[in-house]
Amino acid sequence: MQKAISKLISPSSIAIIGASADPRKTAGRPVAYLQKHGFAGRIMPVNPKADRIGELPCYPDVGSLPEVPDVAIVLLGAERAHVAVKQLADMGCAAAIVLASGYTETGEEGAQRQRVLKEAAGSMRILGPNTIGLVNLTDSIVLSPSGALEMEAFPVGNIGVVSQSGGILGSLLSRAAARGIGLSKLISTSNEVDLELADFIDYLADDPATNVIALYVESVRNPERFRSACLKAARAGKAVVAFKIGRSEAGAQAAVSHTGAMAGADSMYDALFKQVGVIRARSFSDLLDIPAALVTKRKLRGKRVAILTSTGGAGTLVSDDLGAAGFETPAPDENTADKLRALQTGSEAVLDRNPIDVTLAGLRPDLLRGAITALQESPTYDALIVIVGSSSLAMPELMVGAVRDCLPNSDKPLMAYVSPHAPEIAALLTRNGVPAYAAAESCTAALAGMLHANMFEVPDDEPTVPKVCAPSRIPSGTLDEAQAKALFAQFGIPCTPERIVSDGEQAKAAAAGLGGRVALKLLSSEVLHKSDVGGVALGLTAETISSRLESMAVDVESHTGRRPARFLVQQMVAEGTELILGMHRDALGTAILLGMGGVTAELFQDTSMRLLPSTEGRLGGLTYAEAMSMAQELRTWPLLDGFRGRPPADVEALANVVVAFSQMVAQLGERLHEAEINPVFVLSKGQGVMAADGVAVLSS
Amino acid sequence: MQKAISKLISPSSIAIIGASADPRKTAGRPVAYLQKHGFAGRIMPVNPKADRIGELPCYPDVGSLPEVPDVAIVLLGAERAHVAVKQLADMGCAAAIVLASGYTETGEEGAQRQRVLKEAAGSMRILGPNTIGLVNLTDSIVLSPSGALEMEAFPVGNIGVVSQSGGILGSLLSRAAARGIGLSKLISTSNEVDLELADFIDYLADDPATNVIALYVESVRNPERFRSACLKAARAGKAVVAFKIGRSEAGAQAAVSHTGAMAGADSMYDALFKQVGVIRARSFSDLLDIPAALVTKRKLRGKRVAILTSTGGAGTLVSDDLGAAGFETPAPDENTADKLRALQTGSEAVLDRNPIDVTLAGLRPDLLRGAITALQESPTYDALIVIVGSSSLAMPELMVGAVRDCLPNSDKPLMAYVSPHAPEIAALLTRNGVPAYAAAESCTAALAGMLHANMFEVPDDEPTVPKVCAPSRIPSGTLDEAQAKALFAQFGIPCTPERIVSDGEQAKAAAAGLGGRVALKLLSSEVLHKSDVGGVALGLTAETISSRLESMAVDVESHTGRRPARFLVQQMVAEGTELILGMHRDALGTAILLGMGGVTAELFQDTSMRLLPSTEGRLGGLTYAEAMSMAQELRTWPLLDGFRGRPPADVEALANVVVAFSQMVAQLGERLHEAEINPVFVLSKGQGVMAADGVAVLSS
Repeated sequence: MQKAISKLISPSSIAIIGASADPRKTAGRPVAYLQKHGFAGRIMPVNPKADRIGELPCYPDVGSLPEVPDVAIVLLGAERAHVAVKQLADMGCAAAIVLASGYTETGEEGAQRQRVLKEAAGSMRILGPNTIGLVNLTDSIVLSPSGALEMEAFPVGNIGVVSQSGGILGSLLSRAAARGIGLSKLISTSNEVDLELADFIDYLADDPATNVIALYVESVRNPERFRSACLKAARAGKAVVAFKIGRSEAGAQAAVSHTGAMAGADSMYDALFKQVGVIRARSFSDLLDIPAALVTKRKLRGKRVAILTSTGGAGTLVSDDLGAAGFETPAPDENTADKLRALQTGSEAVLDRNPIDVTLAGLRPDLLRGAITALQESPTYDALIVIVGSSSLAMPELMVGAVRDCLPNSDKPLMAYVSPHAPEIAALLTRNGVPAYAAAESCTAALAGMLHANMFEVPDDEPTVPKVCAPSRIPSGTLDEAQAKALFAQFGIPCTPERIVSDGEQAKAAAAGLGGRVALKLLSSEVLHKSDVGGVALGLTAETISSRLESMAVDVESHTGRRPARFLVQQMVAEGTELILGMHRDALGTAILLGMGGVTAELFQDTSMRLLPSTEGRLGGLTYAEAMSMAQELRTWPLLDGFRGRPPADVEALANVVVAFSQMVAQLGERLHEAEINPVFVLSKGQGVMAADGVAVLSS
Repeated sequence: MQKAISKLISPSSIAIIGASADPRKTAGRPVAYLQKHGFAGRIMPVNPKADRIGELPCYPDVGSLPEVPDVAIVLLGAERAHVAVKQLADMGCAAAIVLASGYTETGEEGAQRQRVLKEAAGSMRILGPNTIGLVNLTDSIVLSPSGALEMEAFPVGNIGVVSQSGGILGSLLSRAAARGIGLSKLISTSNEVDLELADFIDYLADDPATNVIALYVESVRNPERFRSACLKAARAGKAVVAFKIGRSEAGAQAAVSHTGAMAGADSMYDALFKQVGVIRARSFSDLLDIPAALVTKRKLRGKRVAILTSTGGAGTLVSDDLGAAGFETPAPDENTADKLRALQTGSEAVLDRNPIDVTLAGLRPDLLRGAITALQESPTYDALIVIVGSSSLAMPELMVGAVRDCLPNSDKPLMAYVSPHAPEIAALLTRNGVPAYAAAESCTAALAGMLHANMFEVPDDEPTVPKVCAPSRIPSGTLDEAQAKALFAQFGIPCTPERIVSDGEQAKAAAAGLGGRVALKLLSSEVLHKSDVGGVALGLTAETISSRLESMAVDVESHTGRRPARFLVQQMVAEGTELILGMHRDALGTAILLGMGGVTAELFQDTSMRLLPSTEGRLGGLTYAEAMSMAQELRTWPLLDGFRGRPPADVEALANVVVAFSQMVAQLGERLHEAEINPVFVLSKGQGVMAADGVAVLSS
């Protein structure tokens, strides 16, 4: 397979099916662009209406091709493309790029056409349909009619791009070129009838010309392959940056648990990306900004940034944005300040601050080099941002030369913020290894991306094998509270002691047996929200429970029309912090969700999520470390960690329960439709965790 | 005064003190730029070392000037500038622009120089020092050495810019020009020894060439004048947009209340801007993006946006960003879809979606005009964004012409997103009245700004006069809880019934008198956190309180080394939602802060804030409507509004208490150092509000 993809991306011979002799038409562009951008191999246009296209002989049909092409670009419409695809497949062509639209994106009829296309291809690989093709800048091979290829030349570099949108490929190509950002390969996968995102991540992970991978993601169709390709890239030391659309999609609604509403489709992607080390670009601009920094291969080891400026306002702007994102801009240490002062004796520059404003040094290359070197060498800083002000406009080479000369001093990140409109200086800096940005937010995003890349540790490739656990009896259907907790208990989750009762006498005995204050709850698998029908009473004792059960029965009957037959008498959890632990499943996989409980936290949607690892469809559980990091990621983590004199909570026990719950979800697999513990109380350190209520729905 | 500012911005004659004959030097640029950009009045350079500068006669000193200039640009260093300023003032020059640095920005010595400068100026107005000057594009008068003026020409338009940073002025000038955004005036105020931000907002509010005002703010030195100038602009129908640096500044720490820590310096600016209708630019880029939309004077009346595209990816990108910000992108109504279908019969375009993808129409101007018109006329949409794709690169005029032709159809906003790198097309669109953006976030920010501008209602100019209230006795010093609540009660704030006691017997009697469960608290003005020393016990009765008081006394003594003499027995509030109500004062003014109580809300810093209006230093209280909007602004407002079956809270009573508290703060003025009610319980509707604890610190 890898061989076919290699041929697709670096073909020696190309057939263009349906090529037009008019280079202004879309069908005329592929030949024109291949020639314009310097393809050295054989180009074979196919068109029954033309003998030649420019200098090239044109063939009337696929059957007349003088050799088997490595790759074919199929420019025919959806009604005819599959015919050419079949012929190409039969003759042994490695891959075809199908540009036509009118497939799945248009509805059911199109989906049928797409199935026909897939069948016609047989073992030949397909890129598309509905794709704008691909651009291999490393080898000067452009297999695309994108209007962006009207540009004369593109900087060649080491960022590989895979986009699920065709239009976005042209946008990234032209924007990167204008900014001096060099790319290696750009591939638009679009409908992904065959080759998909993961195939090209996998390819680029091996590609020696690529060291950073940028993704424009609409939907990950095969999460398991995506995960494995991203981890392969990570192991090869190649960072993956993804911009994912769909942030505004609403969360799915589950039937009986809250978890569904809390787990939006987008937060599933957040979890997936986090777990495989993919850096999420928060804006489309970040999708170039972050790779432009990562491709320098410089290392950011901390959060302390020096800002060197000769213009006040812009330095403050950058410093302020960094500060809001958690970076630090400490003043120079005394030794560094001395070095800076020695550079410009007699100057009034104030050097005990950061941004470091070296008015004079900004205009003399030797002084500028000296200042940059001093800051690179300073133990106070992990990175350096140089501000390009209006005064540099007249002498771009001065600034660029000095900054470039300093690059070998250190492997700390060195980047530039360009304050006035000066795209040429920015591009010159970027081409010279100093990524340059026109927005403070871009500097911040780039540094944050570098920090992320440096911190990610490739996880153990083997998913955790579920603990061997043979539950005595797996129930089915919508479980009532007692059944749900009995199921959880079988997987090692501690639940509140409780008794099922059917009348006041039994309740009294149960309360006496449990001791202390107890809760009385309606027990029913049919009533979703017990408290809505008057089915919950708290703080009862053996003395009061009997009469309370009577009044509850009356109350519930008035709401549901039926007198309840079963109740739960439950030991009350005296204190502890309330959390919610649940699961969520969508096309991306199965996730465990941990959230802070209580109505206030619910308003803030304070949750964290992890996808369960999956190997050939078989789920694994979470590790203890993952479970602990889920808890620590909650914005209300301090509530568990001794905030404002609270007793530290038993977070170890919480992590163990998250692991146990994840193993239950993994082991039950598709049988388990919904499961949620709400609330689970985390008691003081050493006291453990207690599941106080829960729901579960299983298929039979 | 207005006259002097008018002369400063539109002078007929200009003296340049310290002008250099070398146009490459900073001191040579003002004369060169004045001539280059077409100043029609008289330019009088002053320099003892030159006879002529170009064609212009040069004068040896200020005294030799042949006429009194309207304005002088002083290019001398800080050690000599005040001498020239004195001479100019004495001869009756209206205003001087002082460029030298080395004043307050460098420390105490510089501050002294700045005082000397101010004195030398007498009644002459000063812009600066440390300023880069000003640029009046309306009248082709550039009074600045900014390197950005190397550009050949600037689009003239109706956005006035005031920047407290000189470097930023050049940045905005060059960036706006490159994007086709027309400006009227740009003024850099910098050190503001005399003329400040508010003066120029006031000037621009009257300037017929300006209809939107953009501010780059470092620090508002005179909030009262700022407020009045912004409201003047609002009444003149001119929106004010501000970018404020300092978001990463930490909040001030107050001594005895939580409020200080919750009220960051930056949130004070948020409150100020909100109250005077200033639209806050969240990024530096927004400071041009939002005014570029507002200056079209089109009206955004709702949140429903149509996106017209001929390229899939970019439309989705814009739609997604709008959705994440709360805008809607509904599908076309049936009537509109019919109109769109009629434009391109036989096409496969799917028209029941938004983004509306009209592949064919994107390439033919008549169809494009038809589609735009249909969407403008549709009652489904409040605004229209047109996507410019790579295919438009070859024929920019087609797109620009069609969009421009449709502008008169409707006053709904019409803007463009440019997907590939195509700055020329973007600038052409912007110059033609269709603001064009290269980032989805910019479209969203621009629409949000337009919505904000359309919704702001200029408040009644008169601040609320505090209720006539003659407190029987205003205490001083750090009050204990009982004294603080007694003070609050005098201003009409309901407080929990309570008794001060000193021993078990008195406590028992008090508990019996109050009835029900009571709280027992240490009463002391010296202990800041009662619970930290064991000084709070809840849920007591007349039976239990006496012995509990004894153990509390022992516990407190063990912590503080002193046996407490006074306790408070307090009726417990059975239910209700806990809030915190406080005040905060910094250089920007005095603010009232309302926050959700409880430890979870504290972690989320869920607060809202309003500055008290101030007229000649005299504070006014908040209105009922302002108080209510503070509560509604809380992210946890649903807790007060019947969320999840909770009983609706008495928000009217809460608003009344906020008003009463604000009136207390206004009336006590500077005497009141700190005041906070924490918690204040909001009971069920009709049950009112109850202050359960509080602190106050007053000077004597």
